[in-house]
Amino acid sequence: MIHMIERSSKRRGAATTGGMTARGPLLKDELDIVIPTIRDLAFLEQWRPYLSPYHLIIVQDGDPTKKIHVPEGYDYELYNRNDINRILGPKASCISFKDSACRCFGFMMSKKKYIFTIDDDCWVAKDPSGHEINALEQHITNLLSPSTPLFFNTLYDPYRAGADFVRGYPFSMREGVATAISHGLWLNVPDYDAPTQLVKPAEKNTRFVDAVMTIPKGTLFPMCGMNLAFDREMIGAAMYFGLMGDGQPIGRYDDMWAGWCCKVICDHLGFGVKTGLPYIHHSKASNPFVNLKKEYKGIFWQEEIIPFFQQVVLPKEAVTVEQCYIELAKQVGEKLKGLDPYFTKLAEAMVTWIEAWSELSGCQKAK
Amino acid sequence: MIHMIERSSKRRGAATTGGMTARGPLLKDELDIVIPTIRDLAFLEQWRPYLSPYHLIIVQDGDPTKKIHVPEGYDYELYNRNDINRILGPKASCISFKDSACRCFGFMMSKKKYIFTIDDDCWVAKDPSGHEINALEQHITNLLSPSTPLFFNTLYDPYRAGADFVRGYPFSMREGVATAISHGLWLNVPDYDAPTQLVKPAEKNTRFVDAVMTIPKGTLFPMCGMNLAFDREMIGAAMYFGLMGDGQPIGRYDDMWAGWCCKVICDHLGFGVKTGLPYIHHSKASNPFVNLKKEYKGIFWQEEIIPFFQQVVLPKEAVTVEQCYIELAKQVGEKLKGLDPYFTKLAEAMVTWIEAWSELSGCQKAK
Repeated sequence: MIHMIERSSKRRGAATTGGMTARGPLLKDELDIVIPTIRDLAFLEQWRPYLSPYHLIIVQDGDPTKKIHVPEGYDYELYNRNDINRILGPKASCISFKDSACRCFGFMMSKKKYIFTIDDDCWVAKDPSGHEINALEQHITNLLSPSTPLFFNTLYDPYRAGADFVRGYPFSMREGVATAISHGLWLNVPDYDAPTQLVKPAEKNTRFVDAVMTIPKGTLFPMCGMNLAFDREMIGAAMYFGLMGDGQPIGRYDDMWAGWCCKVICDHLGFGVKTGLPYIHHSKASNPFVNLKKEYKGIFWQEEIIPFFQQVVLPKEAVTVEQCYIELAKQVGEKLKGLDPYFTKLAEAMVTWIEAWSELSGCQKAK
Repeated sequence: MIHMIERSSKRRGAATTGGMTARGPLLKDELDIVIPTIRDLAFLEQWRPYLSPYHLIIVQDGDPTKKIHVPEGYDYELYNRNDINRILGPKASCISFKDSACRCFGFMMSKKKYIFTIDDDCWVAKDPSGHEINALEQHITNLLSPSTPLFFNTLYDPYRAGADFVRGYPFSMREGVATAISHGLWLNVPDYDAPTQLVKPAEKNTRFVDAVMTIPKGTLFPMCGMNLAFDREMIGAAMYFGLMGDGQPIGRYDDMWAGWCCKVICDHLGFGVKTGLPYIHHSKASNPFVNLKKEYKGIFWQEEIIPFFQQVVLPKEAVTVEQCYIELAKQVGEKLKGLDPYFTKLAEAMVTWIEAWSELSGCQKAK
């Protein structure tokens, strides 16, 4: 489970030009791109120079009889609800329907070490000098260089070219820890909740902050699934997006749930989580009235969920992500059931998810 | 001790143009600028548009017979070693000599609510569009708007114009907490330790990161005293720069020591600490060979000091900065004395500092 990289490449990040190495695109055979969608994937045309060398896993949400068009030249596998039911059988109950939470089925089906997941309303952003940003390349750089969760570096990512650890940073901590998650950001339409969308309907994010940073150990963050990459071998089993959407009392908290669970497990296991670059261009805000309906229970539930995650302690015996996740499911079932019966169901689904994950991983290993 | 600001101004920061309000420069009568120096203060010529309206407290280090020239038009008080000895008597032992740690004497002599301290080799920086940065104005904005130490906001400072809290940020935490410290950064020569200076003698910081962020609760950071502002009423009593320089086994850890102490006390009392903007232009690196001599004990001591500060717990009964600091002094004396006899002396000096601080504060209040 430990992620070993040779020191010099760690310190300098991956030496590349435009996401290419002498052997072709970075991590071409080790990374899958997971896209949840209900529509044709025309947005991939703009991403062609950056994403077309990689394999796609498309999780089709909603009506399984609808035909999704994928631009020519992309290598992909596509799963609709019928496929999910067929592959998982009764365990398909843990995969959400009519919600982008269904994307985690793609994480389960991947056989690769790394995942990049992106929403179909995300476009290629430009940096302040007008150059297109290769988001995937930046995510790979983030994942292949260490994180520094134990002490804050005021000049941001110390492994970046032209940067380093500042005076007073303990030398014993300068090797950092392996990075499990790279959380990218959004220019144009920011990721606001429904109340903020309603209050500030026209607010756009135009500020390009040229930084990548580690989220310190013990600190939770709101993880957005729109532009996200992770090391599937390190943390994939915890990247479960919960029960959302059709038949559930809540939506739009799928990535938040995954983020809270992943962060406490990364902290427990000593893995790093980064946020910042790369930016994507988020094209349009979803309907705030629809969003409010999906979110409103989450808005007050999170006032109790977050203190729960801030105080959660995982036992020393939990040394794998799967063990941590089962323990977390147990604590969710015990400590959040008073909030709503939904959390009992969610705790059970978390266990089902791990069972399905373990079966499919075992299956893949046997191949 | 609680820092109350009317909500709308908190959310928007201080509404100003070029650091001016309708009533003149921001906080003109509530802020002192503290400068430790051994030389003429010609650097203040460049800062004139931004700093000349404010009162300066100059702490002259080294030979007290030397005459320090201050540019015309600045209002200032100047203290040399003879003044320190006269004012503090036997308690002058807690103020370092031949080290910029002497600056904390200026914090003690101030009667104002806010302090901005700057080194005499720091110049006005320019932003990427070529405009001069009014560092003090940005520090004031940082101090007058809240911090968010309890949960990470991925779009950085949520109180800045054009920004807000992202989806998933708990609403109950959006008021933030009062800000005690604003830590600014440096373009050109970065604040590196001697080993990094030796390895990378030519490295310059050219990356302007357009962000201010709160350092999360429970996370320590390397606080540099070069470009620093704080609320003296909230945290001044803990802004002690320790025993450094002449007659001491260590140097260049003065601001680090203050930073570790202040951060654990801010965390305990629920105050915020920010880092990021504003940048100053740091003109030249100090001699790495001299620095190595000053730092080398600190380099290995910090490997034990930092775990000490990461684990320190202050008692609930400690509800003022002074009480917290006395408790911290006690724990330093108990838990670090095994590292070197220096820490027994430092713990005693911390108590002396608080005694002197309390006397001078009482004295000021009686005036």
